[in-house]
Amino acid sequence: MAAMTVRQIAPATGKLGVLTPGMGAVASTFIAGVIAAREGISAPIGSVSQMAHIRLGTKEENRNPLIKEFVPLADLGDIVFGGWDPISPNAMEAAKTAGVLEGKDLDSISAEMEGIVPMEAVFDQRWVSRLEGVRVKDIPNKWDQAEALIADMARFKEENGCDRLVIVWCGSTEAYQEPSAVHDTVASFEQGLRDNDDNISPSQIYCYAALQSDVPYANGAPNLTTDLPCMIELSKTNGVPIAGKDFKTGQTLMKTLLAPGFKARMLGVRGWFSTNILGNRDGEVLDDPENFKSKEVSKLGVLDGILQPEVYPDLYGNIDHVVRINYYPPRGDNKEGWDNIDIFGWLGYPMQIKVDFLCRDSILAAPIVLDLALFMDLAHRAGESGVQEWLSFYLKAPQAAGDVPAEADLFIQQTKLKNTLREWMGEQPVTHSEAG
Amino acid sequence: MAAMTVRQIAPATGKLGVLTPGMGAVASTFIAGVIAAREGISAPIGSVSQMAHIRLGTKEENRNPLIKEFVPLADLGDIVFGGWDPISPNAMEAAKTAGVLEGKDLDSISAEMEGIVPMEAVFDQRWVSRLEGVRVKDIPNKWDQAEALIADMARFKEENGCDRLVIVWCGSTEAYQEPSAVHDTVASFEQGLRDNDDNISPSQIYCYAALQSDVPYANGAPNLTTDLPCMIELSKTNGVPIAGKDFKTGQTLMKTLLAPGFKARMLGVRGWFSTNILGNRDGEVLDDPENFKSKEVSKLGVLDGILQPEVYPDLYGNIDHVVRINYYPPRGDNKEGWDNIDIFGWLGYPMQIKVDFLCRDSILAAPIVLDLALFMDLAHRAGESGVQEWLSFYLKAPQAAGDVPAEADLFIQQTKLKNTLREWMGEQPVTHSEAG
Amino acid sequence: MAAMTVRQIAPATGKLGVLTPGMGAVASTFIAGVIAAREGISAPIGSVSQMAHIRLGTKEENRNPLIKEFVPLADLGDIVFGGWDPISPNAMEAAKTAGVLEGKDLDSISAEMEGIVPMEAVFDQRWVSRLEGVRVKDIPNKWDQAEALIADMARFKEENGCDRLVIVWCGSTEAYQEPSAVHDTVASFEQGLRDNDDNISPSQIYCYAALQSDVPYANGAPNLTTDLPCMIELSKTNGVPIAGKDFKTGQTLMKTLLAPGFKARMLGVRGWFSTNILGNRDGEVLDDPENFKSKEVSKLGVLDGILQPEVYPDLYGNIDHVVRINYYPPRGDNKEGWDNIDIFGWLGYPMQIKVDFLCRDSILAAPIVLDLALFMDLAHRAGESGVQEWLSFYLKAPQAAGDVPAEADLFIQQTKLKNTLREWMGEQPVTHSEAG
Amino acid sequence: MAAMTVRQIAPATGKLGVLTPGMGAVASTFIAGVIAAREGISAPIGSVSQMAHIRLGTKEENRNPLIKEFVPLADLGDIVFGGWDPISPNAMEAAKTAGVLEGKDLDSISAEMEGIVPMEAVFDQRWVSRLEGVRVKDIPNKWDQAEALIADMARFKEENGCDRLVIVWCGSTEAYQEPSAVHDTVASFEQGLRDNDDNISPSQIYCYAALQSDVPYANGAPNLTTDLPCMIELSKTNGVPIAGKDFKTGQTLMKTLLAPGFKARMLGVRGWFSTNILGNRDGEVLDDPENFKSKEVSKLGVLDGILQPEVYPDLYGNIDHVVRINYYPPRGDNKEGWDNIDIFGWLGYPMQIKVDFLCRDSILAAPIVLDLALFMDLAHRAGESGVQEWLSFYLKAPQAAGDVPAEADLFIQQTKLKNTLREWMGEQPVTHSEAG
Repeated sequence: MAAMTVRQIAPATGKLGVLTPGMGAVASTFIAGVIAAREGISAPIGSVSQMAHIRLGTKEENRNPLIKEFVPLADLGDIVFGGWDPISPNAMEAAKTAGVLEGKDLDSISAEMEGIVPMEAVFDQRWVSRLEGVRVKDIPNKWDQAEALIADMARFKEENGCDRLVIVWCGSTEAYQEPSAVHDTVASFEQGLRDNDDNISPSQIYCYAALQSDVPYANGAPNLTTDLPCMIELSKTNGVPIAGKDFKTGQTLMKTLLAPGFKARMLGVRGWFSTNILGNRDGEVLDDPENFKSKEVSKLGVLDGILQPEVYPDLYGNIDHVVRINYYPPRGDNKEGWDNIDIFGWLGYPMQIKVDFLCRDSILAAPIVLDLALFMDLAHRAGESGVQEWLSFYLKAPQAAGDVPAEADLFIQQTKLKNTLREWMGEQPVTHSEAG
Repeated sequence: MAAMTVRQIAPATGKLGVLTPGMGAVASTFIAGVIAAREGISAPIGSVSQMAHIRLGTKEENRNPLIKEFVPLADLGDIVFGGWDPISPNAMEAAKTAGVLEGKDLDSISAEMEGIVPMEAVFDQRWVSRLEGVRVKDIPNKWDQAEALIADMARFKEENGCDRLVIVWCGSTEAYQEPSAVHDTVASFEQGLRDNDDNISPSQIYCYAALQSDVPYANGAPNLTTDLPCMIELSKTNGVPIAGKDFKTGQTLMKTLLAPGFKARMLGVRGWFSTNILGNRDGEVLDDPENFKSKEVSKLGVLDGILQPEVYPDLYGNIDHVVRINYYPPRGDNKEGWDNIDIFGWLGYPMQIKVDFLCRDSILAAPIVLDLALFMDLAHRAGESGVQEWLSFYLKAPQAAGDVPAEADLFIQQTKLKNTLREWMGEQPVTHSEAG
Repeated sequence: MAAMTVRQIAPATGKLGVLTPGMGAVASTFIAGVIAAREGISAPIGSVSQMAHIRLGTKEENRNPLIKEFVPLADLGDIVFGGWDPISPNAMEAAKTAGVLEGKDLDSISAEMEGIVPMEAVFDQRWVSRLEGVRVKDIPNKWDQAEALIADMARFKEENGCDRLVIVWCGSTEAYQEPSAVHDTVASFEQGLRDNDDNISPSQIYCYAALQSDVPYANGAPNLTTDLPCMIELSKTNGVPIAGKDFKTGQTLMKTLLAPGFKARMLGVRGWFSTNILGNRDGEVLDDPENFKSKEVSKLGVLDGILQPEVYPDLYGNIDHVVRINYYPPRGDNKEGWDNIDIFGWLGYPMQIKVDFLCRDSILAAPIVLDLALFMDLAHRAGESGVQEWLSFYLKAPQAAGDVPAEADLFIQQTKLKNTLREWMGEQPVTHSEAG
Repeated sequence: MAAMTVRQIAPATGKLGVLTPGMGAVASTFIAGVIAAREGISAPIGSVSQMAHIRLGTKEENRNPLIKEFVPLADLGDIVFGGWDPISPNAMEAAKTAGVLEGKDLDSISAEMEGIVPMEAVFDQRWVSRLEGVRVKDIPNKWDQAEALIADMARFKEENGCDRLVIVWCGSTEAYQEPSAVHDTVASFEQGLRDNDDNISPSQIYCYAALQSDVPYANGAPNLTTDLPCMIELSKTNGVPIAGKDFKTGQTLMKTLLAPGFKARMLGVRGWFSTNILGNRDGEVLDDPENFKSKEVSKLGVLDGILQPEVYPDLYGNIDHVVRINYYPPRGDNKEGWDNIDIFGWLGYPMQIKVDFLCRDSILAAPIVLDLALFMDLAHRAGESGVQEWLSFYLKAPQAAGDVPAEADLFIQQTKLKNTLREWMGEQPVTHSEAG
């Protein structure tokens, strides 16, 4: 095959500040797990960057290093934690409130967790009506809020001696709203900030402030933040990577495992009914139809992206796809998803599949936060800007870098992630064909 | 990238005889569906060779033909059906007994189905104690049985004006038995046939006869037939493709969808409990512990093949994997599989997944029979011999062509299948990386 | 024990007309099954009146007749079918549209089914917005509508030579509405009819017309019809039995099996999440939040009725009970219910139960229609009037005859039904104690 | 109704020793929960004797006391714990090994738990091959073993100042064996003890010793102990109550909830497939086919007892009933049961029910131990001897007191239990009929 050129990538020296807007269940679980991994208490299970091997060359060559030994990632020991939150006083309190982790897993790291105190948040209840913010910046104008966030980042970087920062949105889902004219260009957006435009949500202000501070921004919620034309423009102008959107956990993770399999085997799908029960803050927020709307759009698209009804109208052109989320306090943070899938095969005969997933959302999301932080930082050092489509592996509603829609199939996404790393490091992509 | 060379493939002219040892539920469903597809009654759902598209070049090129229009496969209209069975008088009776297809789906094709009369079988109740053969060759010596099968094939080819033949084993699972010295070489096997060696099972005689008749042989059961050194040797000497083993349907299909997903996301697996209930002839046969043993070995291996416990001991080194099959008459041919999967993630927290698959085994197996027949014939015309590892996509316990174990991950298998076809036709493999 | 007095019951001579307002899935399935039972094609499975035995005296006496041989019920051969429907032209078309029964089960009885033509309905889309009536009485005033129904019944009785009539409501669920002043007394209701009062729904007009025609009325939907003070008054004044409400099928049937068991064993309940998917006319109607409201009220009450949170606040005082109904066309008439139940036991330890019920609503409802018709007719001949609480066995939200709430526990309801019949016939109630 | 006579019952004064042969998961959970209840830490959830109310007279009378305030039961504060075990050094160690209760629930009661030291067991690995006893009486002859147990009880009673003793078997399931001639009479059994007869198992020696010591004996395992003619004879001769057999928990509990419901509604049952996965000592023991045999016999009978196929051959005469138990370590003590039930209704149409019960066996069994202990002691004081059929509510395979088989229907069993108590106390039985 053709020779490959190695990408120039700046080394991962110095400290990396990982900032999370939102320091609730997901962020505190992420922080606790990284601390535990640093102290050798538990392996960072679920983190591809830390745990996965990557095959290089042919199988016979038997080269199969850990990803973290193959590409120059920041070391877990070099991570400094920070963020913003309208409610939690520190990461330990956030973890206790969330109830994801048991007391015995928090006791030994409580001092360090208590020391991680979020900065006051940019928050507006109009976008998350079920929450009440108490640790909120008392700044009325949105331009001024952006300036304050930029100052927060500069101060955090200096006080903690960080070489670089990266942001991963771990906050709640905002109410759904179509993009408007204010989101068209950087110029219109900046005018909107000054005008305190109603269409600008808090997550957009965080994203703008990050990109203006040369800080990569990954979007873990279904908010449209990183999809907005102004943000894509700014990320390219400023040379900062962005990625979105919505951590791929729970039921949608399961969908992106199963749907590619049905398609691989050319089995038709007639219906897919998904219902969730969950009892945490996320469940409360999504019980509000406006916030659920954002989530629903993000969740419904995933099947079409994988199954390509336009190519396979007989198999996938007539799917009743229903998604429901129910606030059900007895479940606590342990979300449960029940799927009923109606498929059909040879001669049109129907079959049914029921999947009951007794899942833990924050446990599944935490390693995604880590991987997105490390890979976004890597991309930044590798000179990338704009949408990092190769990270769609981690995201429910992946953004495309170009005009062709992003892949939704988890296995193609995985291949894309690994082959991108191989290419950057000057290795041949793996094709699994006879010759490779 | 480097230029690719197109493989020389003989054209698919003339008729193709598809012979199935075993004309029960699977074979009769396969036949009925192909007839229905020929007559435009139903699309051949589940058949990758007939329904799937294959992307060529980059996404932007927008080249996406059907596989059957990309590679020179035999046309459905050119297939002639035949086989051997110890019980069924014809394909229509087999279909009625099996109860897979409803009366309304059989009525319009009953005449053609009745005309498909299996030849008398080589059968030995020692290997399938729960069945009683009535349409069995009255030939005591195994060498003579092989000769009779060779004669059957020659006669079938001539009487039906076939250009080529292919065999897909659709018979029952034979009792488990380790290979013995008689299976070491072609010479020792032929001596064993003459000596009526107890270690030689009927399926082995079919396979030997096929390879001596230049007929490719695919193995749809967990029998060790095509794994035997003598058969691999013979397939290479005679230049005939073989493939095995065990149609990938039902619960194992589901496993090969889910397990790669857990591994992709580096989620640990602590246990996997699988139970099946089924009420058909297959269920009766597998209720016998000796026959179940063959199946169990085939089913248990699949997880290790995918999860690589030797590479990931912390995640996959301690899995309690239990597989049970239960004869339960109320279910009829509609097998049901229930899986409980215990996984763990970040900080070792456990999660559970329950999958209830109300499945139809023969409906899932029938398109595999078609695809294996067409692709084995293609491989033959393309000059292949020995194990066709690129067809492991269809098989529960895939055989490797070389020393490295075959891939068990359905999605890598799919990539392998498609990239093999691309290479044969002189197209670049698809890598899904930025560059491809 | 004390001697019992036998009740005077008029004999079941002559024909019994069973009229159903609503001739859709449930009514057509009921009719088809009774015809099949009459012709010996199938036993009336699910019908307690036809299939169940009743133990008399002590076990040692070994007296265990069929209920239908113990009490003087109308014979299946004496039933004449009729009804009203805004859509179906006849029972055969209704059955075909419903898709509950397969063609092969309808073919042999199609002539008889086609001959059962519903009368034009009293219908108002305001109460069932998802349906469009086409076979509707063109009578604007509600008093006149009631008169027309009374005339319908008189004519039906005469034309068919019926000795007696009984009505079982098999129509759709009407939009939820609290009772208003017009429902207080018979006088106010009659004035409302004349005034075309908006608060009077079609089902109320049917019920009024029935009671004025000396025809017992059973209410198979969650409509508040038979609960209204005016109807209870009229049923007593006129000496006609009424019963309500809502056929106990599907998920609620399951609830009334399971909840009494938890209570019997003093296991606590922390939450009960119930979701339904169904694709028939009922599903479409209930997809409208106004109609679902009626259903939800009927479904939610059942747990409290059984578990008595006022008596057991520690066990049942804090239950999150959620009920959802989803229109999901792939399921057709085969409703599926999935329940998650969170219980707790010794030392407060939690346990979970998941129940997936692949159910057929009309198949479960049809024998209830039969039993209610026959038992209401029996009660009428036995001189009963007012609410027939002993029939609460069949009903989701049973009405009480007096001030004490009706029992919701299926097993107490069963005891009540059987002991009521025993008492009417002069037999001792069964107590299952040492002495009895 | 007729006047009732009050039974003479001796008062529950003084201490009650509750002895459990077997001090493993069930017994230690029972002990921990009673201690916690005494100290007000947790209510004794699941205990009918402690938590349930009982209605007296008509509903209108509104008399509804707690059972424990209605009948003279021993007070929880008066219970003294003891037992025998071949492995556990004390109740605390047993609880830790079992892993049923979390550390936080054991910490505050650990001192008391550690003080409960089982006596050395009569144990024979021939009957429980998967266990190795270490704290075992070194007495070879069975007669001498019985004498030693009798001495143990006398000493325990005296040392602890007990007024009365009661035994509840909480040990493992013994290997299945049909009764033999040695079990025919007390005389033959005593001769067998002297002869060290192979057919006499340890549980039989415990039972014999109890009955000779005037100590009631309840059998929580499927061992045939209390069914043996010699034991029934001895219990009557000596005036001591016995009860058996097999605590009704988990899947069988679920069966006795559901099956009565199907029968109440006259729904047919075509098949019932039950599988269990569990990872505790019980699971290990039952993985041995000989021990499973005892369990299987006990579990399979329950459906016939409820459904009466002899009375309802069309509905229940052809049931495929399969029960499987699987040792699956990831589940630990948290047994999980999955049931598939195939039912049929009107016109024979099939429906399916799947029940997944994430259960905790010891949590369900512990309150049964308490109730059996208290009610057996009550029965003893009430002058009862022989089989206590009214306690069949708690038992999987209930023994009948006379020739008529015992009721298996949980709801009839509940009625029987409560009406028995009502009768003993001179109250009318409740019939739920119009009159009562």
